[in-house]
Amino acid sequence: MKNYLISKSRRLRGTPYTSRIEKQGVTAYTVYNHMLLPTKFEGTLEDAYHHLKGHVQVWDVSVQRQTEINGKDSAKLVQLITCRDLSKSKIGRCYYAPIIDHKAKLISDPVILKLAEDRWWISLSDSDLELFAKGLAIGKGYDVNIFEAKVDIFSVQGPKSLSLMEKVLGPKIKELKFFGFDYFEFGGSKHLIARSGWSKQGGFEVYMEHEEAGLALYDKLFEVGDEFNLKPGCPNLIERIESSLLSYGNDIDIGDNPLECGFDKYVNLDSDVEFLGKEELKRVKSEGIKRKLMGVKIDAQQIAVNGSINLYDNSKNFIGELRSGSYNPMFKQVIGIAMINKPYFNVSQEIKINIDGKDYSGRLCDLPFI
Amino acid sequence: MKNYLISKSRRLRGTPYTSRIEKQGVTAYTVYNHMLLPTKFEGTLEDAYHHLKGHVQVWDVSVQRQTEINGKDSAKLVQLITCRDLSKSKIGRCYYAPIIDHKAKLISDPVILKLAEDRWWISLSDSDLELFAKGLAIGKGYDVNIFEAKVDIFSVQGPKSLSLMEKVLGPKIKELKFFGFDYFEFGGSKHLIARSGWSKQGGFEVYMEHEEAGLALYDKLFEVGDEFNLKPGCPNLIERIESSLLSYGNDIDIGDNPLECGFDKYVNLDSDVEFLGKEELKRVKSEGIKRKLMGVKIDAQQIAVNGSINLYDNSKNFIGELRSGSYNPMFKQVIGIAMINKPYFNVSQEIKINIDGKDYSGRLCDLPFI
Repeated sequence: MKNYLISKSRRLRGTPYTSRIEKQGVTAYTVYNHMLLPTKFEGTLEDAYHHLKGHVQVWDVSVQRQTEINGKDSAKLVQLITCRDLSKSKIGRCYYAPIIDHKAKLISDPVILKLAEDRWWISLSDSDLELFAKGLAIGKGYDVNIFEAKVDIFSVQGPKSLSLMEKVLGPKIKELKFFGFDYFEFGGSKHLIARSGWSKQGGFEVYMEHEEAGLALYDKLFEVGDEFNLKPGCPNLIERIESSLLSYGNDIDIGDNPLECGFDKYVNLDSDVEFLGKEELKRVKSEGIKRKLMGVKIDAQQIAVNGSINLYDNSKNFIGELRSGSYNPMFKQVIGIAMINKPYFNVSQEIKINIDGKDYSGRLCDLPFI
Repeated sequence: MKNYLISKSRRLRGTPYTSRIEKQGVTAYTVYNHMLLPTKFEGTLEDAYHHLKGHVQVWDVSVQRQTEINGKDSAKLVQLITCRDLSKSKIGRCYYAPIIDHKAKLISDPVILKLAEDRWWISLSDSDLELFAKGLAIGKGYDVNIFEAKVDIFSVQGPKSLSLMEKVLGPKIKELKFFGFDYFEFGGSKHLIARSGWSKQGGFEVYMEHEEAGLALYDKLFEVGDEFNLKPGCPNLIERIESSLLSYGNDIDIGDNPLECGFDKYVNLDSDVEFLGKEELKRVKSEGIKRKLMGVKIDAQQIAVNGSINLYDNSKNFIGELRSGSYNPMFKQVIGIAMINKPYFNVSQEIKINIDGKDYSGRLCDLPFI
């Protein structure tokens, strides 16, 4: 497969960490929310996967932009755009929440941080959710402010992340519960730190608002990181598929509804809260979904998924599309995530797929893989 | 300057032409509306610039996605989001139109195509305008349908574009006026073709809705193109800056209002039409703008603008930021586009700029350059 260069410009914004990661050996980027997201450092993707599962990495994930919604009607607006019931949500907690439109189509699958009763951050996946929220608020005449907060996240991921963070920030960091957040002092500033991140290896996300102190914290981690075998890294395709962490635009998109994506526990149809697409979701639920996101295990040793790849049954009937995939060293085969049509979405279903002109066999499985 | 690779995935969609341009020698991409936009083919950017100004090129600009807005309230919604008066707009015409929010901040600078009184395409710059329009329509309770139309544009640009298009589509193509569009038959399908494009060298944009027939037209152009010295190409940084074609996200963004961007002739404050941000624009106009988009000529032989670069006067006062720039063979120096603060925005202003650690001098000028 031929490689192509990325052309930088002001439109594809760099981050406060870009000059650092470019010294630290980044070799490839993707673009996410109009910004550069590192995808590869020197060495193989598989080396980085093993390192992430054994040690600790610091990632530049500034691309997770924060849409801030504050003001009198902010709670009403945030609830209006998600099918997750936030009526009992607490300050200091993160909520994974599907954002849907009036037809129950998925616009984003962000993490929502409740900073105060009338102040929220929506930690975006790759779409301009700010524009949707703003349009809706203008149309409804809501009393809110909506803007991109000046926050650039770096993530500390891996089993040794707790020890590393404790060394730098003290034992209070251990009190943070999963998807909880609190403020921690470093370099004369307070930093919002959440126990979260886009891997299943444990870790933290530092919501950097004070650039100088935040960069000092970034540098401090690398200064003391040797004993934990700290390396610079980035979200790892192999690990995130193995851990079934979904990627908006890859695995799920605006053509899907949250029940097709397996978000049932974040779809609260029985509570009294008002949100867009509620009636449509009730209809979908009563009729049953017609497509479902599933895992696929394929008897192949490599794959590059740059677009949907059709899946067939043994009789050449189209049964769905593979949306992401990679070779997995633990399963010793390719695993991937696919949207599968009814009536094929069951775990005994065999599949056929053509990769670079060659046919391979595989089988569906439930998500998560492990 | 080190080069970085782009990591492809389903989230950065390819286009119907991707497999063709990759055979035709594309070497670099940017990402625009979540899709791959070619930025460079084999050979230098300067060679491509000279070729574009002398001959004809075909460009894959599928990234110019079409947000279709149709239905009873579609004209009302389209007018609501632009400060350009569309009350006298005609079917079969394209309208360059700043899209702004309630605070008169620029969300997009698309071309709007009026397909029917109740059917519009908005040919997007790089932001999810569909989400803004959808949020607004839901909030207002408008009776409209809003979706991404299945349209993949290729562009035919350069002084020989008319001869090439006439050879393939017949003399009727000559009747198209600048920014007019009509339907032309090829391969058993009708294709919407506009006399437009993102260069000042003349040309056409083919709004491909029928993939098979559209690709046949693409191939036909290359089949007969030799006599016009046809080459595959893409929007050219040197030419588009020289021609002062603005790029949303580069030269202008959500922090700017249309009067600061020099869009005065598309800001219709005296007509009766209702649009978002109208009162704010009246206020800005009466108080006078505090920043202005201008040209800059710099006594340097090369530059790479990957983010804003500060500009200073001779006394080291900050006066504005350079947002895009490139060496220009005609001016034999670097020219670029900058947002300049009051009171510095006048053509006699000298500027200082630091490029890669070295200081250079220059001077502001009005846009367009030529």
